[in-house]
Amino acid sequence: MKLPLCLLAAALSVSAQTPTPSPTLTGRWQVTAELFGSPRYLSLNFDQKGTALTGEFTGDKLTGTVSGASVSFISKDTEGNTDAFTGKLEDGTLRGTCTEVDITDPAHPLVFPMTATLIPPLEHPTPQRHDFIPTVFYRQFSPFNKPVLTVNPGDTIHTTTVDAGGSDEYSIQRVSGGNPETGPFYIKGANPGDTLVVHIVHLKLNRDWAGSDDNIVSRGLGPDLAVKSKDNNKSVRWHIDLAAGTASPINSGDHVKTFAIPLHPMLGCMATATPLAMAPPGTGDSGFYGGNMDFNQIAEGATIYLPVTNPGALLYFGDGHAAQGDGELNGNALETSMDVEVTVDVIPNKHIGDPRVETDDAIISMGLEGDLNEAFRSATGNMADWLATDYKLTPSEVAQVIGSSAEYHVSEVADRNAGMILKLKKSTLATLAK
Amino acid sequence: MKLPLCLLAAALSVSAQTPTPSPTLTGRWQVTAELFGSPRYLSLNFDQKGTALTGEFTGDKLTGTVSGASVSFISKDTEGNTDAFTGKLEDGTLRGTCTEVDITDPAHPLVFPMTATLIPPLEHPTPQRHDFIPTVFYRQFSPFNKPVLTVNPGDTIHTTTVDAGGSDEYSIQRVSGGNPETGPFYIKGANPGDTLVVHIVHLKLNRDWAGSDDNIVSRGLGPDLAVKSKDNNKSVRWHIDLAAGTASPINSGDHVKTFAIPLHPMLGCMATATPLAMAPPGTGDSGFYGGNMDFNQIAEGATIYLPVTNPGALLYFGDGHAAQGDGELNGNALETSMDVEVTVDVIPNKHIGDPRVETDDAIISMGLEGDLNEAFRSATGNMADWLATDYKLTPSEVAQVIGSSAEYHVSEVADRNAGMILKLKKSTLATLAK
Amino acid sequence: MKLPLCLLAAALSVSAQTPTPSPTLTGRWQVTAELFGSPRYLSLNFDQKGTALTGEFTGDKLTGTVSGASVSFISKDTEGNTDAFTGKLEDGTLRGTCTEVDITDPAHPLVFPMTATLIPPLEHPTPQRHDFIPTVFYRQFSPFNKPVLTVNPGDTIHTTTVDAGGSDEYSIQRVSGGNPETGPFYIKGANPGDTLVVHIVHLKLNRDWAGSDDNIVSRGLGPDLAVKSKDNNKSVRWHIDLAAGTASPINSGDHVKTFAIPLHPMLGCMATATPLAMAPPGTGDSGFYGGNMDFNQIAEGATIYLPVTNPGALLYFGDGHAAQGDGELNGNALETSMDVEVTVDVIPNKHIGDPRVETDDAIISMGLEGDLNEAFRSATGNMADWLATDYKLTPSEVAQVIGSSAEYHVSEVADRNAGMILKLKKSTLATLAK
Amino acid sequence: MKLPLCLLAAALSVSAQTPTPSPTLTGRWQVTAELFGSPRYLSLNFDQKGTALTGEFTGDKLTGTVSGASVSFISKDTEGNTDAFTGKLEDGTLRGTCTEVDITDPAHPLVFPMTATLIPPLEHPTPQRHDFIPTVFYRQFSPFNKPVLTVNPGDTIHTTTVDAGGSDEYSIQRVSGGNPETGPFYIKGANPGDTLVVHIVHLKLNRDWAGSDDNIVSRGLGPDLAVKSKDNNKSVRWHIDLAAGTASPINSGDHVKTFAIPLHPMLGCMATATPLAMAPPGTGDSGFYGGNMDFNQIAEGATIYLPVTNPGALLYFGDGHAAQGDGELNGNALETSMDVEVTVDVIPNKHIGDPRVETDDAIISMGLEGDLNEAFRSATGNMADWLATDYKLTPSEVAQVIGSSAEYHVSEVADRNAGMILKLKKSTLATLAK
Repeated sequence: MKLPLCLLAAALSVSAQTPTPSPTLTGRWQVTAELFGSPRYLSLNFDQKGTALTGEFTGDKLTGTVSGASVSFISKDTEGNTDAFTGKLEDGTLRGTCTEVDITDPAHPLVFPMTATLIPPLEHPTPQRHDFIPTVFYRQFSPFNKPVLTVNPGDTIHTTTVDAGGSDEYSIQRVSGGNPETGPFYIKGANPGDTLVVHIVHLKLNRDWAGSDDNIVSRGLGPDLAVKSKDNNKSVRWHIDLAAGTASPINSGDHVKTFAIPLHPMLGCMATATPLAMAPPGTGDSGFYGGNMDFNQIAEGATIYLPVTNPGALLYFGDGHAAQGDGELNGNALETSMDVEVTVDVIPNKHIGDPRVETDDAIISMGLEGDLNEAFRSATGNMADWLATDYKLTPSEVAQVIGSSAEYHVSEVADRNAGMILKLKKSTLATLAK
Repeated sequence: MKLPLCLLAAALSVSAQTPTPSPTLTGRWQVTAELFGSPRYLSLNFDQKGTALTGEFTGDKLTGTVSGASVSFISKDTEGNTDAFTGKLEDGTLRGTCTEVDITDPAHPLVFPMTATLIPPLEHPTPQRHDFIPTVFYRQFSPFNKPVLTVNPGDTIHTTTVDAGGSDEYSIQRVSGGNPETGPFYIKGANPGDTLVVHIVHLKLNRDWAGSDDNIVSRGLGPDLAVKSKDNNKSVRWHIDLAAGTASPINSGDHVKTFAIPLHPMLGCMATATPLAMAPPGTGDSGFYGGNMDFNQIAEGATIYLPVTNPGALLYFGDGHAAQGDGELNGNALETSMDVEVTVDVIPNKHIGDPRVETDDAIISMGLEGDLNEAFRSATGNMADWLATDYKLTPSEVAQVIGSSAEYHVSEVADRNAGMILKLKKSTLATLAK
Repeated sequence: MKLPLCLLAAALSVSAQTPTPSPTLTGRWQVTAELFGSPRYLSLNFDQKGTALTGEFTGDKLTGTVSGASVSFISKDTEGNTDAFTGKLEDGTLRGTCTEVDITDPAHPLVFPMTATLIPPLEHPTPQRHDFIPTVFYRQFSPFNKPVLTVNPGDTIHTTTVDAGGSDEYSIQRVSGGNPETGPFYIKGANPGDTLVVHIVHLKLNRDWAGSDDNIVSRGLGPDLAVKSKDNNKSVRWHIDLAAGTASPINSGDHVKTFAIPLHPMLGCMATATPLAMAPPGTGDSGFYGGNMDFNQIAEGATIYLPVTNPGALLYFGDGHAAQGDGELNGNALETSMDVEVTVDVIPNKHIGDPRVETDDAIISMGLEGDLNEAFRSATGNMADWLATDYKLTPSEVAQVIGSSAEYHVSEVADRNAGMILKLKKSTLATLAK
Repeated sequence: MKLPLCLLAAALSVSAQTPTPSPTLTGRWQVTAELFGSPRYLSLNFDQKGTALTGEFTGDKLTGTVSGASVSFISKDTEGNTDAFTGKLEDGTLRGTCTEVDITDPAHPLVFPMTATLIPPLEHPTPQRHDFIPTVFYRQFSPFNKPVLTVNPGDTIHTTTVDAGGSDEYSIQRVSGGNPETGPFYIKGANPGDTLVVHIVHLKLNRDWAGSDDNIVSRGLGPDLAVKSKDNNKSVRWHIDLAAGTASPINSGDHVKTFAIPLHPMLGCMATATPLAMAPPGTGDSGFYGGNMDFNQIAEGATIYLPVTNPGALLYFGDGHAAQGDGELNGNALETSMDVEVTVDVIPNKHIGDPRVETDDAIISMGLEGDLNEAFRSATGNMADWLATDYKLTPSEVAQVIGSSAEYHVSEVADRNAGMILKLKKSTLATLAK
């Protein structure tokens, strides 16, 4: 089936137009439409010249007129389907009605109410540090959960996360398992079509154990290994030795008695809430919104970029791992509670269609798809978009840069989506012509 | 269809029995059978106690008797199919006839001649260094090509390789393209069922350019990127700056004018010849025998382990790359000629079913399969075998070690097989209990 | 992360024990636990002998005692984790508290309230036919939507569905698009652990057009076809000619002016509501619960078997297609409204882990996974389970029957899950020994 | 690496130009080049106007001149690489030298000798029927095997094939197993760039048994089924009851004692020899040349289209199956010897890049790739090419026809390539506008 033209437009549209301060309608608007009783966010940009309006509505070009408080415009997509709006501007809010006509069925237009407000320039007040103690944990990356805290761009949030099974730093289970999340945090000034920037300042372990197991998930099991591993099915508790900086399995096999791996705390989940039109995903899932990415470089010092599809972005995070091999092959990594400090910011009117990660020395695109082949394709395409947009490379140049310099790692095999990442070193990118 | 029982046995059988010096038949034998006019190598191990023989033939247990020069034995597989041999030992060579009976069709036995000689203990004469100038280059990893040089275990071979298109260090094309190989080198004492060890001592670039292109292979192309890249289709010549240690594309786009990547010479191809019963693969292909693996850590300092399926192992290598991103996304890496120095050795009676790589700080298993999902499974299964055999880990312990510590990278997406590698750090493995 | 032991047990547990009428506790119980404020359904079977209880709780063996109204039992899984219940039976309802102890963390038990009622034998009152006119349409296969109608096993429901875009038989859009569903229907006597049986008696087209498009979804697009199809992106309206029994695209290309395909009405979606612990999937998704399977043999005359994970099963259906090629390659099939008549029934205490379809002449298993390779594996494994359970075949016999006789078709490539089906002819199965 | 420009050109080039009878050079030429001691076939088309030549060489446009017996031309590809030929025409044979210049390395041209003859119009003499008794069987689809019989277009070949294990109709093993083939047959008038047409007139079983097994190949084995099937590993002999038209496993399980499946004889293998530049594939492999496709509709009445890449096409076939479920899930189908009657024909100057099948009621494209996802993409792309070329459909129309009407089945999962087929009913295609 096909969605009505405008339904997911907020998540999908890209606006190349930078809003400029103006006493007129010129600028980027935050639109809420009411479709069959449910709200949807749509994209709208006006460029006013006298009484004439041009711009973009849900990704399509619009033309319109302003006459006193009355505003009307029409936009048309490549097939000829149209959206026609008429309304009035009162106290800075545009209210009216949109009529959508499907060119293959003009007899049955869709009519819906719509309100819009001009998005003000992003502000960065004096940065604040918020100590936040969570009391509720959510199991869906839902836009319908009430924000637990509102912060400004530039602020720092210091809080904790429970482990994937719901247990906190005191080993008390606080919630049903399944990657319960801390959040959502409302970031002021974030609007659909923006990019949320989350920098992980500190990620500290806050208890002395992690839970894991000895399974191998089915993406790792060929028939021979499946038969060999048929009796694997036990929980494994790991001791976290903060002083030594290592973790070791407890009583879990003669040959692993002394086995010790370096601690490398990371967050399995980080997400913005999903669009209103979408069934809110469970916290075991992942996608363009981030989610349960289980990528072991989402760690202290990393910066994560996520698309904003709701006002306030609604940031969630959780599912801390004391360490994790690539892919989270056991289904569980070293699951543990965590002490988290992040700073948040917003890049206005910058649309990315997928999660991105930046570390001290590299930029990293991610592909999250139903299998590793598609995840590889997606990570490649996402980096190609990044290089084309931010580095202005041509398709030929993109191919030369990625082909000669990309590192591809598996990020995730344990969940519904498989993940692959593509990493480019900043030192190599630094040699590109300006 | 099913192959006759013994056909590929040499490649598949594993013998746990270490040959001990003995004046009797006890020990491991090199067997050549003659099937419908074509030779095949089979595995045979005898343990002689008086006139009684036990042991293994093509992977199945045998029982037999020695009576003067007469030797006879019979082996049976799990289904009840039998191989019965009778022959005579003359001048150290056992000659006779084998009768194979398929239990579902006993009326039509297969009878074939067979000769065998006892494999002597492996010798390591004083190591020699061979300077070898190639004059012929092969385009199949074939067991039917005449060895170009015979060396002893422990010897060093210093030679050169032409680039994938067949051009040498003087830019002279010497052979049709398609990864023409230097070799095959015959390593004395290597027998089917052994492992060949190739250590890359030096890998030096010997000209100032490499050839590549701006394509993206289809494993990297989703529909969107395919459309964006539709006009990519040009050769790109890279300048190799040995002094600076970098390579840069020449006249290949405004934004890559100053682009420079670190040189990292590697060999795209390294292989032992394939079993006699198999159609010799082209040098663009890969498999258990190694081949066109295009893995960018097969570089100076690395040690490669390959299964031996022919007497002398018959080592090939070629397809040098001045540098390569993970996967060889362009189809061509920075293709160039190379100055190569390797030492070779043999691990007798050690069977590995897949190529393995060891570096200073890690052991690396490889999966080479029709797609990345299967390559991931295969790399995992191959490392599980490695840890079970060489580190004596139980299946549960294997899962804990890999799950907590594995790195998975893409090695190859450009050829028929996709490749994934699984890397474990030696520093982590060092903490395992002895 | 690992879920608490009992969380998803209702969906996963299988009980081999047939309840027998008894004045005692013996029988199958419907259990509702309260976990951190949210209900979960668990499985419980008692076999009472005097004051002694045996049976199964959440898939694990239990032992317990009855003393007057007091009931207590303990169950243990293979790792040694335990659930201990103590409670009282009053007016047929067992109320009490369950204490769950994780053997790796005994200091932190999980305690939760639990109520249970004995499931009575399934009843089939005189079948009724319900004419139901839907006024609300849901976009998630949620257990939280209020049932629109309650029916008995054996009853017939006659109703209508809107098309995938939300338009009804009068071309009036009634709801936002995205496969809005008719339902949920509550089937009395259906309990978690049962199988719902839905027989499609009639499936009639009720308007003269369907909407589709000329896209090819990315699973069908290699790089070459992607480039060739880069300008495909239009809606295509099809005329439905009920008299001729065909559909034809309208004004959609010179060569398809006279193109006409046979009508073959089908339902793209049919599902039971998902378990309480799971994020309710959107109606574009599919899984063990059925959902948006888009399989073109879910048509008049077919019987669909779906697992029950909520009391009443909560049946949804919608997304009618006038016809559809295998896989729904365009993303949209011939999307249209439909007149639907189904009969429903329940197989008590019969657990299936995946949707199954039966037609006049065949049984059909389905694999719904992230890619076609996994969907193939899943369809194979699901049919192997079916043959082992219902036909008592050994694993060797399963392989012989499937290997010699299976037909494998693609059912779905348009959505997040890919689908493959495995079909076995009843005429062939009829030759199996009884 | 990149192949020299012309190496595989014969297999790849397409000429849209139909040769017309002419006393001049105008027409299509069969070219043999000599590259580093090995022959290669290249494509060449001349259109002579006076002394001026235009046309195509290895897929690139050429311009040239004729001066008496002297002929010279130059062709250039899109990158600017050139091939320049100068030679003489004597007794209908053009002999000369071609100089290939790579624009990125003009200092090192490649020079090679070349001969060419004008391809005469295809002739169809009075059809003959050849009874051919094979005495040799090949295990590679090699262009280097001597043809066993030469026939004309329109002729019928009546012969036999041994089973996949090499046993004939008398149960005598004639050759090592691995799908030994009957052929190659040389079809006069077939030239690189043509299409070979093979119609299967009769396919008759000629003995009363077939060999199979109870394995499930790894593409069908998820972890659960792998564990359940871990002891499956036996040969299964099937009795062929020609009178009843069925086959039944012998002594292979209590529940399959009476199991009987309909006989449906098919050929697992049919191929043309592969291009000279390619390592000849083993007879277990498949590709654009056909090969071990294991598609159960390659049966009596079917017509198979295969690309010709060598003079005479060099047709091979073998690997008969008495019956086979989709995909050959056991690795072996019901392997048996066969009595085969085919008629052969040639479509001159018609290039297809992949095997195609036509039955009484359908046309069928095939995708043979490393996994089922890619095979699905490939089957789709191949049918899109077919519809565009032979039915003149636009990309939008292609999508509408396939999307509404395609059937997709699995053809092969047992070998290195997976196979998917796309079937379109002729009755539906018949409604397309002429």
